[in-house]
Amino acid sequence: MNDADVLPLPDEFATTAEVLGEGTELARRLLVNPAAHRVPLSGLRLLHPVPDARILCQGANYRSHMVESGMDPERAFNMLFTKSTASLAGPYADIVRPTHVQLLDYEVELGIVLGKAITGPVTVTDEDLSDYIGAFVVANDVSARDIQLPQGQWYKGKSYRGFCPVGPYLCVPDPDEVGRWRELRLTLSVNGETRQDALAGDMAFGPAATLTEWSGLERLDVGDLLLTGTPGGVALQPPGRLVQRISALLPEEKRWELFVKGQAKSDAYLKPGDHVEAAIRTDDGKLDLGVHRNTVR
Amino acid sequence: MNDADVLPLPDEFATTAEVLGEGTELARRLLVNPAAHRVPLSGLRLLHPVPDARILCQGANYRSHMVESGMDPERAFNMLFTKSTASLAGPYADIVRPTHVQLLDYEVELGIVLGKAITGPVTVTDEDLSDYIGAFVVANDVSARDIQLPQGQWYKGKSYRGFCPVGPYLCVPDPDEVGRWRELRLTLSVNGETRQDALAGDMAFGPAATLTEWSGLERLDVGDLLLTGTPGGVALQPPGRLVQRISALLPEEKRWELFVKGQAKSDAYLKPGDHVEAAIRTDDGKLDLGVHRNTVR
Repeated sequence: MNDADVLPLPDEFATTAEVLGEGTELARRLLVNPAAHRVPLSGLRLLHPVPDARILCQGANYRSHMVESGMDPERAFNMLFTKSTASLAGPYADIVRPTHVQLLDYEVELGIVLGKAITGPVTVTDEDLSDYIGAFVVANDVSARDIQLPQGQWYKGKSYRGFCPVGPYLCVPDPDEVGRWRELRLTLSVNGETRQDALAGDMAFGPAATLTEWSGLERLDVGDLLLTGTPGGVALQPPGRLVQRISALLPEEKRWELFVKGQAKSDAYLKPGDHVEAAIRTDDGKLDLGVHRNTVR
Repeated sequence: MNDADVLPLPDEFATTAEVLGEGTELARRLLVNPAAHRVPLSGLRLLHPVPDARILCQGANYRSHMVESGMDPERAFNMLFTKSTASLAGPYADIVRPTHVQLLDYEVELGIVLGKAITGPVTVTDEDLSDYIGAFVVANDVSARDIQLPQGQWYKGKSYRGFCPVGPYLCVPDPDEVGRWRELRLTLSVNGETRQDALAGDMAFGPAATLTEWSGLERLDVGDLLLTGTPGGVALQPPGRLVQRISALLPEEKRWELFVKGQAKSDAYLKPGDHVEAAIRTDDGKLDLGVHRNTVR
């Protein structure tokens, strides 16, 4: 199979768990004799490969992103929150900026689709991590900074329809490949200019530690999609220390008003017509999760 | 039917949507001749009536709670976040304090079970609100303040297993009764001492405005459970203004350390053995959502 062809699976799958289970099994069989089934990719509209996934997120999980966001990179806790399932979109879908949003930002993230249900507290280690990984996938945690930050809780500013392009396919790794997760390089460019470029190994809380903690909190199911945070290079750049100290003296509403006004001067936020490309792969190309191509509307 | 008897439905329901649909229909038929089916409540263990509900939450939505939390009661936005489905528990279940949690708090809330899917942006008004209300129900948004607040995002501190007692039954209101939602009185006591006592009418963002905004964000489904916020009277009481100003000069980690230490001196937080009762009803008793009785372990 080459980049221009796909092999359609002779079945439909309503849940992410089915895609991972029967879907992966069917795909394996098809790949034995791929020539017989291939279809040109051009002309197909790719949807995202996680039909009903619940989206679990880690906030500010790369040291480079913590530093640029003015957070302490030695922070001792794993910030957990969620994003709506309705935000899921295909890897080539347009990203639609809601009319009331000014500060539209991007966040390339390594997505992990859970391959095994976790019904009670467990300790996941690097050694048995591969038991829990159903697939790796590229995700973009699109964020409306002027909603997300002034309103405190991040769910709303990250949950608008289409705010989570995912795909183009599920990369189902073997245990050796899972062991290489730190070598995955996340890149994102806007109109051809590289904005984000970092290794997953820069994460503060890796997948084993995160699944361990999350298992103490609640049940996790096959098909749940974990977004593991984004590296530095997003459009959001906090004001300098002096401005922060002065604005700390202002009432909260006024402070956020100035924040939005200041950020709105930046050219880095996404504008209609911008072209965003996001990709994740190891430098040797052996583990390749594919590329997103999205236009902002 | 009296308080000591229940009518078992001759079927099982896997989803909240089925409980609301076929379940309600069956219940209506049973109530035509209730004597034939009644079973004493004593000896039954009541589970919560929303088997798989997704939990959507409004933060700090009562003016009285905003003021006591040190927030601006004229805040111009509706704070939205989520709580795990795994936190659901029965109305008489024990509330288990995780071993690493010190500041365990209660929050009685009016729960609204959605009765109609909302697939795109709609404007819900007080006039057509009853089209969207499947049921009212009592909920307790149990919160670990020492996780919730220092870690910024509230999902984790509110999502531990058993942190959301719901029940004892779904109150399916007719349109006139929906129109009386502002008259619902929420009360919560700890060991017989009243801590919370307020009318739902004190909400900053009512159900119609909230469903309208949420519909602009994502799809909502029959069976989704909306927790509409809690009134004043929770254990959490912020330090005075002077302490807040001084502590604003400290590094964030130190500030939260002092916050937890200060709060831990309060007697108001839940301790093992405490008995919590939460109820919601109109003062005339015509709309009565029932009572929770939970012991802290």
